Amino acid sequence: MERALEYLVAHREEHLERLIDYLRIPTISGDATNGPVMARGADFTAAWLRSAGLEEVNIHQTPGFPLVTAAWRRAAGQPTVLIYGHYDVQPVDPLSEWHQDPFQPHIRDGRLIARGATDDKGQIAMHMLGVESILRTRGSLPVNVVFLIDGEEEMGSPNLLPFLKDHRELLRADLGLVSDSSMWDLGKPAITVGLRGLVTLEMTLTGPNRDLHSGTFGGTVDNPLEVMARLLASVKGSDGRVRIPGFYDAVRELTPEERRDLEAIPLNEADFYADLGVSQGFGEIDRPLLERVWCRPTFEINGLWGGYNSAGFKTVLPSQAHAKFSMRLVPDQDPEAIIAAAIRFFTEAAPPTVNLSIRALPGGGSGIVVPSELPAIAAARQALTEAFHTPPLLIREGGSIPVVAQMRQFLGIHTLLIGFGLPDARTHSPNENLHLPTFWSGTEALVRILHHLAS
Amino acid sequence: MERALEYLVAHREEHLERLIDYLRIPTISGDATNGPVMARGADFTAAWLRSAGLEEVNIHQTPGFPLVTAAWRRAAGQPTVLIYGHYDVQPVDPLSEWHQDPFQPHIRDGRLIARGATDDKGQIAMHMLGVESILRTRGSLPVNVVFLIDGEEEMGSPNLLPFLKDHRELLRADLGLVSDSSMWDLGKPAITVGLRGLVTLEMTLTGPNRDLHSGTFGGTVDNPLEVMARLLASVKGSDGRVRIPGFYDAVRELTPEERRDLEAIPLNEADFYADLGVSQGFGEIDRPLLERVWCRPTFEINGLWGGYNSAGFKTVLPSQAHAKFSMRLVPDQDPEAIIAAAIRFFTEAAPPTVNLSIRALPGGGSGIVVPSELPAIAAARQALTEAFHTPPLLIREGGSIPVVAQMRQFLGIHTLLIGFGLPDARTHSPNENLHLPTFWSGTEALVRILHHLAS
Repeated sequence: MERALEYLVAHREEHLERLIDYLRIPTISGDATNGPVMARGADFTAAWLRSAGLEEVNIHQTPGFPLVTAAWRRAAGQPTVLIYGHYDVQPVDPLSEWHQDPFQPHIRDGRLIARGATDDKGQIAMHMLGVESILRTRGSLPVNVVFLIDGEEEMGSPNLLPFLKDHRELLRADLGLVSDSSMWDLGKPAITVGLRGLVTLEMTLTGPNRDLHSGTFGGTVDNPLEVMARLLASVKGSDGRVRIPGFYDAVRELTPEERRDLEAIPLNEADFYADLGVSQGFGEIDRPLLERVWCRPTFEINGLWGGYNSAGFKTVLPSQAHAKFSMRLVPDQDPEAIIAAAIRFFTEAAPPTVNLSIRALPGGGSGIVVPSELPAIAAARQALTEAFHTPPLLIREGGSIPVVAQMRQFLGIHTLLIGFGLPDARTHSPNENLHLPTFWSGTEALVRILHHLAS
Repeated sequence: MERALEYLVAHREEHLERLIDYLRIPTISGDATNGPVMARGADFTAAWLRSAGLEEVNIHQTPGFPLVTAAWRRAAGQPTVLIYGHYDVQPVDPLSEWHQDPFQPHIRDGRLIARGATDDKGQIAMHMLGVESILRTRGSLPVNVVFLIDGEEEMGSPNLLPFLKDHRELLRADLGLVSDSSMWDLGKPAITVGLRGLVTLEMTLTGPNRDLHSGTFGGTVDNPLEVMARLLASVKGSDGRVRIPGFYDAVRELTPEERRDLEAIPLNEADFYADLGVSQGFGEIDRPLLERVWCRPTFEINGLWGGYNSAGFKTVLPSQAHAKFSMRLVPDQDPEAIIAAAIRFFTEAAPPTVNLSIRALPGGGSGIVVPSELPAIAAARQALTEAFHTPPLLIREGGSIPVVAQMRQFLGIHTLLIGFGLPDARTHSPNENLHLPTFWSGTEALVRILHHLAS
């Protein structure tokens, strides 16, 4: 292992050049016309995997943009790790806020600045370099690995689930490993062991059969915008709890050990709110902030619209009101049951003065939590401690990464999320960047994880 | 008077031709580049007023489109009637729904079809023809008249109020008369003796200082869209009454006579709701429908928006929520006091988790009601009964016509709204039309009104 780490140090310049070439390809998946560029991105990924010494490298066409897979399965009797990442990147708007072209990577103050530098080309490069360093110096890997590199993650991976279902043998593994998240802070690594699930719904209320003049008709019929306000205002009680019957039925309280892990996280709540510019929090405020965002389900209105919304005024009593909303779920909550409960709640609450149309939107999925007794957590904890000289925090994430739940459901494996983004990496924003010292330490950590996962 | 009526019958063809020429001018005031056409419209109006025998005909330039005035003030000792109308018209979109060019007037089934046929060129033509018929046959009018013809009514008359204030002497009168509204039904004339006032406001709530990811932050901070829903849901009680303190303080109950007039109106509530496609009404449902819409103030959300409102989904917890809302007022309610009460209500109700920004929008004004003992009402009632062979209904209108309140406030006069549009005149819509038998009867009624108004 030491030789692999020496190899990484010796080849830093060459490896950085290769990453820069990778980042020059503007693989924005949000642009449906970007097919030729995405093909170049897939080719580059495949070539890098091949040059790292991986085998069975394949580019898989989909109805959208291609997926790339590779594997190395010569470690007989050892576990198999499925490494997921993505070569597609976010759009670059607003372009004017970038200090330089987002696809002309440059280094400043020890950071490589480019779209995709952290999310996620930089992080899949770390995995490829880790495997390369071991194979070049040792000739074999301590465990088996499979790479699955998505080309549509930033647009919700519409073709990933069918691919998982159709390629269970190719993707057969004992553990998932995803580096598409963040460290707790500079120098403070983290293992993300929980994610919330997500269901999303859309609702339309129709009152009168046409937009009405609010003078000629105001006072006679119910206004769908008012009904929408009444319905949405009824979802939460003054205690911040969601009042949809059954919403919390499957939610279990934290174990003492989980609560201890949570309390070990050094979060300053006042700083958290100050950064958002809010004077106080909201929700189940009798619970700690991190419990609320990581371990409790919630309901959010994501969009609300109807009537006139331009300059000046229009005295309309609109025919329709619309809302999009979502619920974040914790493990054990069944997405389908929660969707059904929400639909029942709004259907029963809607007054006879309007017609309600409500439906779940595609996407989303269950929450997940990795059991703390999983041996892989100990292996990762040891590797990160060695590489960063400080033990990692075991954290959760309030968001949802559908692939993790899908890998649990369809491949039957737990996934460790070990990300190396920093809080100021500006992923999805202008001037996205990769902190290079963290990049090298993270690559080292990944080399060490593969060793510690071997039995 | 009989000779004037005979004159009208004898010259129908010629008068119709003149109206058709008037309607050929596409005087759409909503198009700011339409200056040359609007000038032609003003010129045509002035020429018609002159040929009708009116004096002091003037075209007044404004920062927008011109106003036209004329007067005949030789009836010493008699009252002066200020006739207001407008030569501008609504846009014609969607053009594809017109059976013919909206500015190539044609007659079908006894109706003249063209943009502006009823609203309002046809109705100001009736006044001009009425005056012409009397002056050509009698040499003098029984009362004094002043014409004030607006060129910007369809865009809110932004230059009318300054003109009223600057021309009080020119516009000095004892009574306003406006034909820009509707009959109750075919063959059923109406005098509109009340209008509601209007105030409009806009409100923005700001929570976090930026749009947040609803997974990473959902459950920690208040969502401005939820706060907006709670605020707007709190405006009305389950009894349909507005809960803003002081809202009803100045609202007086109908007198027995007013209630009798209201109950005389043949409105079928079931038909009213069925036409709108709603199964039941809403509001102060213990009161009759017409009382609610004509004689009671109300609160309506006219627009509501925030977050994501396009296809698919975005898991955003938005920074801001917006609403536009309005209140219809009845006479005695002071618009400024109601605005202040609403601002106070929302300011006190807004929780500390958001910042509230709220302001009144320009426009609107007081409600008005014409005292039923006003002699002009009796004169108009008699004239309409003679011309249509049935007594008119005394109705109100739930909407607002700012010029009527402005003439009350700045010229000190009451105004009778005697309109000849039919419910199916399709004003503001494709295939606007003018029912020609009603046009001739209405012109006769206007001749008779001028006679009955003379002392």
